[in-house]
Amino acid sequence: MSRFWNARVHGLSPYVPGEQPRMSGLIKLNTNELPYGPSPRVLEAIRAETGDTLRLYPDPTALALRETIGRHHDVSPAHVFVGNGSDEVLAHAFRALIRDDAPVLYPDVSYSFYPVYAGLFGLETREVPLTPDLCIDVADYTGPCGGIVIANPNAPTGIPLSLDAIRALVTRHPDCTVIVDEAYVDFGGTSAIPLVRDHDNLLVVQTLSKSRALAGLRVGFAIGHPDLIDGLTRVKDSFNSYPLDRLAQVGAIAAIEDEAWLQQTTARVIASREQLVAGLAELDFETLPSATNFILTHHPDRPAADLAAALREQAIIVRHLRHPRIADFLRITVGTDAECDRLLTTLRTILGR
Amino acid sequence: MSRFWNARVHGLSPYVPGEQPRMSGLIKLNTNELPYGPSPRVLEAIRAETGDTLRLYPDPTALALRETIGRHHDVSPAHVFVGNGSDEVLAHAFRALIRDDAPVLYPDVSYSFYPVYAGLFGLETREVPLTPDLCIDVADYTGPCGGIVIANPNAPTGIPLSLDAIRALVTRHPDCTVIVDEAYVDFGGTSAIPLVRDHDNLLVVQTLSKSRALAGLRVGFAIGHPDLIDGLTRVKDSFNSYPLDRLAQVGAIAAIEDEAWLQQTTARVIASREQLVAGLAELDFETLPSATNFILTHHPDRPAADLAAALREQAIIVRHLRHPRIADFLRITVGTDAECDRLLTTLRTILGR
Repeated sequence: MSRFWNARVHGLSPYVPGEQPRMSGLIKLNTNELPYGPSPRVLEAIRAETGDTLRLYPDPTALALRETIGRHHDVSPAHVFVGNGSDEVLAHAFRALIRDDAPVLYPDVSYSFYPVYAGLFGLETREVPLTPDLCIDVADYTGPCGGIVIANPNAPTGIPLSLDAIRALVTRHPDCTVIVDEAYVDFGGTSAIPLVRDHDNLLVVQTLSKSRALAGLRVGFAIGHPDLIDGLTRVKDSFNSYPLDRLAQVGAIAAIEDEAWLQQTTARVIASREQLVAGLAELDFETLPSATNFILTHHPDRPAADLAAALREQAIIVRHLRHPRIADFLRITVGTDAECDRLLTTLRTILGR
Repeated sequence: MSRFWNARVHGLSPYVPGEQPRMSGLIKLNTNELPYGPSPRVLEAIRAETGDTLRLYPDPTALALRETIGRHHDVSPAHVFVGNGSDEVLAHAFRALIRDDAPVLYPDVSYSFYPVYAGLFGLETREVPLTPDLCIDVADYTGPCGGIVIANPNAPTGIPLSLDAIRALVTRHPDCTVIVDEAYVDFGGTSAIPLVRDHDNLLVVQTLSKSRALAGLRVGFAIGHPDLIDGLTRVKDSFNSYPLDRLAQVGAIAAIEDEAWLQQTTARVIASREQLVAGLAELDFETLPSATNFILTHHPDRPAADLAAALREQAIIVRHLRHPRIADFLRITVGTDAECDRLLTTLRTILGR
């Protein structure tokens, strides 16, 4: 508290990111990073840009990157917005594309940054409950709304929605922006980007932090009708002209271009995930069907908080989220096969099997 | 315009950054970048970080960087905030630390992003005229105010204020935040950072884009009382947890640590500036006294717009700003001695000398 703060600051409840422990030797399965480093082409591109040109401002429009993303997703650069991680893209989308004459709707269990953005921008909110089996039912998104935000696949449940469901949602709400946050879509979900052509109210947000193994580089993007992109750009250019530095722009271009790396790496993660889910089932864990690089899993006999604490004592960090509807669950990032094996072995010991 | 935009977006007047031309072979004296590349230690640090760890999120608190900046300026890390360029730091400061029960005050001729931020956050504003000789007089900052923003040295005039003037300003306004934007201070100004200890309402903002030759890396910081830093952090953590990627964090640490490089480089720019000012005087230009890496200069016989256009035809880009009080001036970045010579030679031809 300070008398120098703007009144709005007192009421904020900032987002709390997953722990980034400084000690080494940990198995870090708490923030959904990829267990493999990024494409070698990304590292080459960054090294090539590491020179005297760092004295010059980056392209504030990031045109080359937007062209690359556009080519990859078969849209024009005018359909593409880029930002400093998908968190910044989402922040600008909440500011620019959610009207404030009605509440913004999002799932009661989803990415916990959504209510934080709403708080920052003073938006009225309505949390729409997931179904009893923790799914999004788009039929529940009714009534007045100034915008809708959905994560697909949803996080932290990992459960995907079909393209038909997304299409139904955007069709039912032609007068408000529907933001689909596809942070995890490359691990088995279906992207709604092809719907952008026919639905001017759809904004699809993706990140390079997960499937492209670039959480450390901070690049996210959105694809939508050029009018939506214009709104985002107006807000961005009223806030920070150059959110993506030169290294991030060239690294991101190389990452998007290396589709073979993406396919190979996500296939590897998906295979590890299926093995992990099977191994957990042998220990009586019940795991939600995941289309992401993490799982949400529950043990009928042992409180999730106890398991998280016991794993931490063995240098394995997983995430126990506080939302009451998932308080009995652990969210576990899919690591390498060796890390998953170590997790299973450790759980076996903890459970006395 | 779009029916999906939040009402506030329609009223925005986004900032227009200086042109970043894509053609090569230009002498680019329009965006106040340094003519020399960054410290070799910065490039080494970035190269060393370009590896598999890019898969991991950066430290959201950027603690190591804040410690380095704190050590350099003799304050604790709790006094230091870092962001994606000083533009982002200033944006958060406008949001967090300017009250909205009274107008925010800033000079009528100053960094043109200030009114843009005020527009984004819906703040009432009052532009305080510079004196007839284009100086800031802190005695003019009177009346109700929700905050004060000053650039020192001021941009685009280049004229510095004394530490006594800043002390008088913060002393006279104990109940509102005074933001001092020191983007150019290393080229001959006097930093107000030592005043932070005695004045809990002072926030000093600096950037690595100018004197550290890192416009392409996007790092800025603020130093102030921990309560001010807390307010900034609350807003930042409600917007984007990780604005500084891993490469920017390590590069910035190396830049701050290489004080010898900074001293040597800024001395070189200052020497070039004095030569340039002398050369321009021989061509009858009248140049404001600059403590920055640019000058604001005026020719009694030739309109500034004409001169800018004629220079551009000779592949030299300078900036002609639209504000009526400086419409007769050109803002010219101090380049290398060779670039300054070429500028002078070209101007001599244009002026028919």
